[in-house]
Amino acid sequence: MTEPLPTFHGSFTIERRYPAAPKRVFAAFAKEASKRRWFAEVEGFETFEYKLDFRVGGAELSRFRFGDGPEVWLRATYHDIVPERRIILTYAMGIGDNPFSVSLTTTLFEPEGSGTLMTFTEQGAYLDKAEAVKGRETGTRDLFERLARELARG
Amino acid sequence: MTEPLPTFHGSFTIERRYPAAPKRVFAAFAKEASKRRWFAEVEGFETFEYKLDFRVGGAELSRFRFGDGPEVWLRATYHDIVPERRIILTYAMGIGDNPFSVSLTTTLFEPEGSGTLMTFTEQGAYLDKAEAVKGRETGTRDLFERLARELARG
Repeated sequence: MTEPLPTFHGSFTIERRYPAAPKRVFAAFAKEASKRRWFAEVEGFETFEYKLDFRVGGAELSRFRFGDGPEVWLRATYHDIVPERRIILTYAMGIGDNPFSVSLTTTLFEPEGSGTLMTFTEQGAYLDKAEAVKGRETGTRDLFERLARELARG
Repeated sequence: MTEPLPTFHGSFTIERRYPAAPKRVFAAFAKEASKRRWFAEVEGFETFEYKLDFRVGGAELSRFRFGDGPEVWLRATYHDIVPERRIILTYAMGIGDNPFSVSLTTTLFEPEGSGTLMTFTEQGAYLDKAEAVKGRETGTRDLFERLARELARG
């Protein structure tokens, strides 16, 4: 008898407020040099490659490892870009030939006073263990804290 | 003041049992001629183009219209294929330059007696109206009824 393949579905939404206008927050997602700083070059990770082609149909690629871990790849495709308002992409992460997650993310930017309310939603299929959903949410919250520091660079 | 862009998230799961082995049901997803019959050439729709490149990283493209409606495109990318067991893809549908949905789907095939238990999950961002989630589920159930007839061809 074949065991069912481990396949867990989950979703989470993160709201963050930043003291910068939507134009500035959006730019940190759209410009390769800026996104590389907060998204790819993370403490404790070794980044082998990072590329961003920010347009509908365009791809994003990151290859990295954490500590002594195996090389992980992340490949994203951009499906919808409304400048300063919305970004929708799909991405997979994996090791070697096998993805360990496939996700769909929506990031909304709304002006709030002189700042931005950012609402991020990830819907995903996680292919290793059920706790992966919670781990992904935690990792994403950490990235958005890094984005706060990127925006503070001015 | 700019209105927030209509962006609705939803997910649904459909279970279907078919009196055919996983190998046969999986083949109806994997072979272009078979999938074209139940997925693309639907009564009431005019199909302009259908292409399937069934491999990880491969694409699926369909262009069609319903009645006198506008031409709609569907573009999918395959992220995970475990023969006779699992298919994970992402797809967008749209009109002209604008997607009206971006989705992630997981289809699991399990043997059950001499037949197959198929479990399909769609997680999606629907960009027109909240009712789109329910409409997508209904349309998908219709497709799986068509798949039953395709499998009955023997």
